[in-house]
Amino acid sequence: MSADATGAAIAADRPHDPLPEPGSAAERGARAMLGDPVRVAIVGASGYVGAELIRLLALHPHVRIVGLVGRERKGDPLAGIHPHLATRNLHVYDRVPDDAEAVFLALPHGAAAGRIDDYRANSMTVVDLGADFRLRDAADYPRWYHFEHPRPELLDSAVYGLPELHREELVTVGRKPGAIIGAPGCYPTTTILALAPLARAGLIEDLVVDAKSGVSGAGRDPKADLHFGEINENVKAYGQFTHRHTAEIEQELGALGPATTNPGVVGIDFLPHLVPMTRGILSACHVRPTHEVSQVELDAVYAEAYTDEPFVTVTSSPPATKHVLGSNEFRVWCGLNERNGRILAIGVLDNLVKGAAGQAVQAFNVAHGLPEPAGLLQLPLAP
Amino acid sequence: MSADATGAAIAADRPHDPLPEPGSAAERGARAMLGDPVRVAIVGASGYVGAELIRLLALHPHVRIVGLVGRERKGDPLAGIHPHLATRNLHVYDRVPDDAEAVFLALPHGAAAGRIDDYRANSMTVVDLGADFRLRDAADYPRWYHFEHPRPELLDSAVYGLPELHREELVTVGRKPGAIIGAPGCYPTTTILALAPLARAGLIEDLVVDAKSGVSGAGRDPKADLHFGEINENVKAYGQFTHRHTAEIEQELGALGPATTNPGVVGIDFLPHLVPMTRGILSACHVRPTHEVSQVELDAVYAEAYTDEPFVTVTSSPPATKHVLGSNEFRVWCGLNERNGRILAIGVLDNLVKGAAGQAVQAFNVAHGLPEPAGLLQLPLAP
Amino acid sequence: MSADATGAAIAADRPHDPLPEPGSAAERGARAMLGDPVRVAIVGASGYVGAELIRLLALHPHVRIVGLVGRERKGDPLAGIHPHLATRNLHVYDRVPDDAEAVFLALPHGAAAGRIDDYRANSMTVVDLGADFRLRDAADYPRWYHFEHPRPELLDSAVYGLPELHREELVTVGRKPGAIIGAPGCYPTTTILALAPLARAGLIEDLVVDAKSGVSGAGRDPKADLHFGEINENVKAYGQFTHRHTAEIEQELGALGPATTNPGVVGIDFLPHLVPMTRGILSACHVRPTHEVSQVELDAVYAEAYTDEPFVTVTSSPPATKHVLGSNEFRVWCGLNERNGRILAIGVLDNLVKGAAGQAVQAFNVAHGLPEPAGLLQLPLAP
Amino acid sequence: MSADATGAAIAADRPHDPLPEPGSAAERGARAMLGDPVRVAIVGASGYVGAELIRLLALHPHVRIVGLVGRERKGDPLAGIHPHLATRNLHVYDRVPDDAEAVFLALPHGAAAGRIDDYRANSMTVVDLGADFRLRDAADYPRWYHFEHPRPELLDSAVYGLPELHREELVTVGRKPGAIIGAPGCYPTTTILALAPLARAGLIEDLVVDAKSGVSGAGRDPKADLHFGEINENVKAYGQFTHRHTAEIEQELGALGPATTNPGVVGIDFLPHLVPMTRGILSACHVRPTHEVSQVELDAVYAEAYTDEPFVTVTSSPPATKHVLGSNEFRVWCGLNERNGRILAIGVLDNLVKGAAGQAVQAFNVAHGLPEPAGLLQLPLAP
Repeated sequence: MSADATGAAIAADRPHDPLPEPGSAAERGARAMLGDPVRVAIVGASGYVGAELIRLLALHPHVRIVGLVGRERKGDPLAGIHPHLATRNLHVYDRVPDDAEAVFLALPHGAAAGRIDDYRANSMTVVDLGADFRLRDAADYPRWYHFEHPRPELLDSAVYGLPELHREELVTVGRKPGAIIGAPGCYPTTTILALAPLARAGLIEDLVVDAKSGVSGAGRDPKADLHFGEINENVKAYGQFTHRHTAEIEQELGALGPATTNPGVVGIDFLPHLVPMTRGILSACHVRPTHEVSQVELDAVYAEAYTDEPFVTVTSSPPATKHVLGSNEFRVWCGLNERNGRILAIGVLDNLVKGAAGQAVQAFNVAHGLPEPAGLLQLPLAP
Repeated sequence: MSADATGAAIAADRPHDPLPEPGSAAERGARAMLGDPVRVAIVGASGYVGAELIRLLALHPHVRIVGLVGRERKGDPLAGIHPHLATRNLHVYDRVPDDAEAVFLALPHGAAAGRIDDYRANSMTVVDLGADFRLRDAADYPRWYHFEHPRPELLDSAVYGLPELHREELVTVGRKPGAIIGAPGCYPTTTILALAPLARAGLIEDLVVDAKSGVSGAGRDPKADLHFGEINENVKAYGQFTHRHTAEIEQELGALGPATTNPGVVGIDFLPHLVPMTRGILSACHVRPTHEVSQVELDAVYAEAYTDEPFVTVTSSPPATKHVLGSNEFRVWCGLNERNGRILAIGVLDNLVKGAAGQAVQAFNVAHGLPEPAGLLQLPLAP
Repeated sequence: MSADATGAAIAADRPHDPLPEPGSAAERGARAMLGDPVRVAIVGASGYVGAELIRLLALHPHVRIVGLVGRERKGDPLAGIHPHLATRNLHVYDRVPDDAEAVFLALPHGAAAGRIDDYRANSMTVVDLGADFRLRDAADYPRWYHFEHPRPELLDSAVYGLPELHREELVTVGRKPGAIIGAPGCYPTTTILALAPLARAGLIEDLVVDAKSGVSGAGRDPKADLHFGEINENVKAYGQFTHRHTAEIEQELGALGPATTNPGVVGIDFLPHLVPMTRGILSACHVRPTHEVSQVELDAVYAEAYTDEPFVTVTSSPPATKHVLGSNEFRVWCGLNERNGRILAIGVLDNLVKGAAGQAVQAFNVAHGLPEPAGLLQLPLAP
Repeated sequence: MSADATGAAIAADRPHDPLPEPGSAAERGARAMLGDPVRVAIVGASGYVGAELIRLLALHPHVRIVGLVGRERKGDPLAGIHPHLATRNLHVYDRVPDDAEAVFLALPHGAAAGRIDDYRANSMTVVDLGADFRLRDAADYPRWYHFEHPRPELLDSAVYGLPELHREELVTVGRKPGAIIGAPGCYPTTTILALAPLARAGLIEDLVVDAKSGVSGAGRDPKADLHFGEINENVKAYGQFTHRHTAEIEQELGALGPATTNPGVVGIDFLPHLVPMTRGILSACHVRPTHEVSQVELDAVYAEAYTDEPFVTVTSSPPATKHVLGSNEFRVWCGLNERNGRILAIGVLDNLVKGAAGQAVQAFNVAHGLPEPAGLLQLPLAP
């Protein structure tokens, strides 16, 4: 990968395309490159994902934060809510300013779909970091999230905001006003990116996904089981058999090849764990392949998939979550177990960056025709 | 389970058995019950497992510690090596006293087999906490441990010290002098106990074992990758495809039924991870069953296997490692995924207790005819 | 120290004392030694201190737990509240059984004083682990705790349950029914025991107490600032200038000598910090001495104070909190700074054991004439 | 503070100054502003501070890394040494390229002074992150560091690289070739910045500095006492009475006023602790003032000292280390204890950034006439 590469080129270099529509993401992005930053708002600014959006967007060279929205806040200083961001001198209000051009929603499941009309009425690009616009099949919402989707007719027009798989769609949707981007979940990003090359190659006969996450993915609300005393020196599985992110993983991997090609991506065995750390997800994907394959072939499919990706690195040994802490990087390793012919793919990311806020910014950049890594160049923090 | 239950009954209540031989573990255990404690020594007292053996044996009601052996120590006070044990006023020397009746060996792989003759010449019971007496097939040592076993002829007479599977053998071997007990590894204990009921039921068609461990399992020697700065806020897989404990797991699960019955226990997919905590192992065992099975049937096979076990609890929801911290408990949960018909079994233990020192003491107790929970009653420490 | 020493001797060997009154702690303790355990109840069993009381009392050789009380619990299994204690098969109810002989109260400040009459009406020994019976001066409650003490007339009869300073009073109060023991706070225990020898020697001219605690001392209730994500990788001071434990420290150190002797124990500078760990307190006590003193003299005053104490160890280098984790031990080091003539005393303990539940059991033992270390012999857990 | 403020203005806006000398830092900085980046090398690139220098300098807009030096490395890829920096595609060699214009030295104490002639011969700016150029009095080296300084004649020309106290000197030294900057230690930065306003005001009658640090300050070499199992769940004091950083603190605070004004800054009581986290230092400075002072007066002296500082924030409540994690920020709070008239000043920083690499870059920027926050704008990372 080369995080310095300007993914923008992908969107910009289209001489035969018609001009983007007025009020579209692409038109606003073009203006931003000329010095008029895109005016963005963040709804759900009080949570962990909200904080991370602020951290990234505050230093984004083509963006200006014009609104922070939290529940029932009337101009409260951000310093009291997120002390680490105190130097930015921002305040939290109860509504998005009308002149915002894009809005990032970091809300509980189901809340975004109910508010989206207001934002679209003002031609804002909507980047939803919740689940409301991730799934294509409305029936998946009652099945996995236990609510009826209030606006199923919008699902078709939303783009699943994983640039590595949907970059073209993000570009396209960004050329009209009111684009909706459903930013992926943290486990799905880790797992889909780890497995996409294998799925494309039709290699997944049987699949076990065993994932481990830091606790920030569970949000900031105080809960008894997120108390330091409960998490520290403790590992536990949770959400066995019913974790909501399963639906996304199956949807996206399933789209990379017919079920007959990858029978293992139907009814997958997905098990998440909570480990005593704040950030990071590691997804170990245990694959029994549909047919015999060599390490050389595996290396080739991963190289083909990711060589040009600005935020993906294929590693030569299993990566650790700390290798990407605080950055928008995704790292993946894929190995062949010579003893039994199985494949192991391991992906890591920072759940609040590439698994949430960073990826949302990346998708926002693509839709707006901005350089894809803009605002996301920060290197991982270690130790 | 009932940790108060005296597993000793199993060993003691054998009216028709001949008397144990003089100098045997059982004879010495019988004397201990009358007030003459078994004299034990610990070799490898400077490490983490050594410390844990001291912690447990120092308060064992039927044992007296008569010797601590560390590398090149000449009476050094234990307080300088293990400050937490300073109040015991013990010292570390360079050899086992001749009057020891049992010796616990916490040594690097390959070291125990080279020393064992000295101990057996004095009729000591040998409880080896390394790998030298765990595997039955001498060819497994070069294959998994990269050394030729120096005393392959002893492998047959050693007992794999997992009381839940080999209690009768422990009793038998304890009735003659010079018993050799190969105490199981930490991952194998977690995994074998989690899966034994399924293996006995012939249910394992396909098996993925994804395990997570605290760092104390890697020993106390300073290593760059065990530095706090490297482990903290980090999760990583390691030993992929070649972890030595795989051999034990396959040996023991394979012995519970023919390979044709459980094809999944041959060439298993075992992947360990290091997580940022000191103690604890969680083993998630993903099983595709040989045939359809119900939750009720699963509950029955686990209940049958473990109801009377003093240190095993079958739980109704996935257990966490902190539920057993500092204790000799093993907890296991087994669930059926209704969506895809797969089985998930999750086991947890404290790698230094039930995964090492505690289990060694438990096996020692059984071989000596002592109450099985003697010295092991301490409850888990939480939070 | 010698934790095996039976502090009981101190209480038991009093041939000329009159017999303890019927229904008194001492009478019940004497019966317990003959095989009839003291029947104890724990109120506030759902919290961290409650769990720790259960962990210790469940294995106490002279005690039987006859009641666990939590808020609005109707026979809920303990396993659901404290999974680590699941094997004990206990249940939580909403009231103390009438036949309890002693009751341990782990309640929010102010709650114990309001309930105590019920318990005393049944001649129960009351061991309060809250603050309601720690302070002698009723005016200290509004000043430090912001409530008027509802039963100021009881304060005189309560004993401050720090056996190292008040052993004789605990013995005396245990000889009559309805004894009230106010078990000390965690910071005060650490600080008072670290400084008592210096206070007795009249050495404290000026005093800064800088303490560091794990988060379990803040209780189990979910709070935003105790979320793992907030505590992990974080150190912060809190309660600056107004921490309630200041009152106890001044009361107890002040009682060891006139203020003119130790001017530094009036208006002390006490600053606690929260560090990212679950258990443990370290109190660094910076003393400017009233007069020049040598290291030899310091060693002598600490040796004199603590040589015979079953749970106190004077160390030759600064102790760490992990040296006492999970045990009832207190360790202290005192050094003279040759460069500037100042004294530094550092004490450590486990805040839930010697700083709460363990100390309460220790004081209970003394009052009941039981061996002082009964139920408290467990060695520290490390690593 | 305003991190966006261009501290460069301080250096740049000097119309009457003569032009900087050719080969000087200032001349090279001026060229860098025109597009020709300063060519920098890092010696000691394999350690934690080295990694942090790479992390910051790799994205510095006016710098190009032209050399990384580690012990006996011959072009080893950085990815193998610091996996988190793998995407930068850098390599480690055994010598500094001759065309480097500035060199950052992250070496053990005593190593820098021995090598410095080579670098100065090539007119490089030398920024030493070790202790060799921090102290003005050569006699302090044998006293605190136990070695004779090999080049005492250089001490006078070196500048103590704390921009908040020595900005003018940094500007001056940067106008001639071969500037030597001794970047401050981590504890001294925290403590000096926390206390400088009080020292200038002549308020320090008596001083206790009680500091807490994460373990990364101890470097990356594997040591038994930095093993995760030893640090986790543990707090301990160390270096009592003799910590080397004491000398720096006394030197710098002493320079802010005569000893008669601040008697407390001579022979200070400095006690560091190790807490279970990777990054961060909190320094609690307990001050008995020379005379009565009000909170309003305290607020005024801190505001005066720091209002214009780009990396210092005065807070209204005690700051936590996590508020500045990964950033170059320093935060400080100062409060008056109304009860006893004492002052408490608490400072926090990230020991690897403002306590080491970040501060070195900040000082480098000032000396080169670059914008002071260049390369240092990254916001803190939380949670």
